[in-house]
Amino acid sequence: MKKQQTKILVNGVSSSTIGVTDRGLQFGDGVFETLRVQKGKTVWWQQHMQRLLDGCHRLRFAKLPDIETLRHEANELLADCNSSGTLKIIITRGYSSSGYAASTETISNRILMLTPGHRHQSKADQGIVLGVCKQQISGSQQLSGIKHLNRLEQVLARTECQSEGWDEGLMLDHRNRIIEGSMSNLFLWQQDRLLTPQLDQTGIRGICRDRIMSLAEEQGIKVEQCEIDLGDLPNSDGLFVTNSLIGIWPVVQFRCRHLKERQFEIAANTRSLQEILEADICSAD
Amino acid sequence: MKKQQTKILVNGVSSSTIGVTDRGLQFGDGVFETLRVQKGKTVWWQQHMQRLLDGCHRLRFAKLPDIETLRHEANELLADCNSSGTLKIIITRGYSSSGYAASTETISNRILMLTPGHRHQSKADQGIVLGVCKQQISGSQQLSGIKHLNRLEQVLARTECQSEGWDEGLMLDHRNRIIEGSMSNLFLWQQDRLLTPQLDQTGIRGICRDRIMSLAEEQGIKVEQCEIDLGDLPNSDGLFVTNSLIGIWPVVQFRCRHLKERQFEIAANTRSLQEILEADICSAD
Repeated sequence: MKKQQTKILVNGVSSSTIGVTDRGLQFGDGVFETLRVQKGKTVWWQQHMQRLLDGCHRLRFAKLPDIETLRHEANELLADCNSSGTLKIIITRGYSSSGYAASTETISNRILMLTPGHRHQSKADQGIVLGVCKQQISGSQQLSGIKHLNRLEQVLARTECQSEGWDEGLMLDHRNRIIEGSMSNLFLWQQDRLLTPQLDQTGIRGICRDRIMSLAEEQGIKVEQCEIDLGDLPNSDGLFVTNSLIGIWPVVQFRCRHLKERQFEIAANTRSLQEILEADICSAD
Repeated sequence: MKKQQTKILVNGVSSSTIGVTDRGLQFGDGVFETLRVQKGKTVWWQQHMQRLLDGCHRLRFAKLPDIETLRHEANELLADCNSSGTLKIIITRGYSSSGYAASTETISNRILMLTPGHRHQSKADQGIVLGVCKQQISGSQQLSGIKHLNRLEQVLARTECQSEGWDEGLMLDHRNRIIEGSMSNLFLWQQDRLLTPQLDQTGIRGICRDRIMSLAEEQGIKVEQCEIDLGDLPNSDGLFVTNSLIGIWPVVQFRCRHLKERQFEIAANTRSLQEILEADICSAD
């Protein structure tokens, strides 16, 4: 993605800084969303905002963010934008003087960052190399599914991907079940059925994952959320990973130190889902 | 603690803000230390700095923070301070344009915050109410012991303590083993032996915990790090929790919804450890 100037609003004001007593910095006490911007418009706004609200609610924020305000501020950033890009929204619990405990009167902080840039299509077209990270994914049921700001495990997993030369790496829980990629959700084909790891214990419930499950079901494809182990992957009929920014990346090579390396052709049904998803993105708002 | 003006240095400059692209805010990608300040001097500086360096090393920071610089900046903040207080040091991986991956050239950011204030002794003297949090503590072995910035579980646990009226609450892992308190480490007496949860899988290796283990052993007390379950607590001969700021808080009431409430007298050997610890604090640097 070619980088242009990032535009930032902090609590509605053009700024690039925040107070160091913000609880997002102090404890990772907040949530975020990363939205795809397509021709100057946000994609899946409503779904992202729903997850954002759910997250703030489950983290027991004193007051939920006002979505109309966020929409207004997003529009302000997007005013002169006709291109593609990324809109990141961070909501923290707000400022705090000391300690983990927050006052019930704490007012949350909001940060919107728009980064314009063209998306490279090559990985969606040609497919990717998928590895398996040593970095585990942990997480308690109380935080499962929430896109919160505690992302050290993902940071370390991405570092592994970089040093191993993988485009993406899978993260396993303490029972060695596959949960997700370091920055994506996983799907696999078992004949004509589509399987994806269940995320009741940990993991991030991806907006794109939800969209793909809905779109596939509309096509009459049976979709199942279930326990998936590494051993299931080489025997599958195709793999792909997804997130809101990348769409669908098909896997052409799966590497795991405990299993035989496996090459995949990009399945016709993956190509078909890519087309359906792109159509959905172009019509979404 | 009576609050006075907090003094802050960000990368050596007097400031109260940091750029919103800081990875501490974006992902909780950093570590922190909270040091007790006694009569204008930091307590256990070397031990805190050792843990800080260990953390940065295990998180694979491109460059470890320079401890001499931190000492110099701490001295600058403490120049006119003859009282008690808290010095918080945050080191983040630095600024980042987008995504979990960090460039190997990223330069870390450092924040030092000095908050003067008198410590209330009443909980150390009179003892506390200890509960058991519903909020689990998770964490992968790769992050165990590190005082990193991913602290959402502790934030939610503290919220429980507040709403339940406990002074502190214990956090259990997914196997229901006790790991630590929401902001402290736990010790229990079994006759003359001192037990504390082992922290090889998750939890924060407290500096005060380490000091107490050493000081106790110097007194000929046998100290053991082991697996501890909730059922072990009512049968113990006394409990206390510790951290660098509070020292030792004896438990006078233990509450757990699954067990009979238990009152404790404050054990003589706890009182004796409190005295030894305070002497260590007064002589430490």
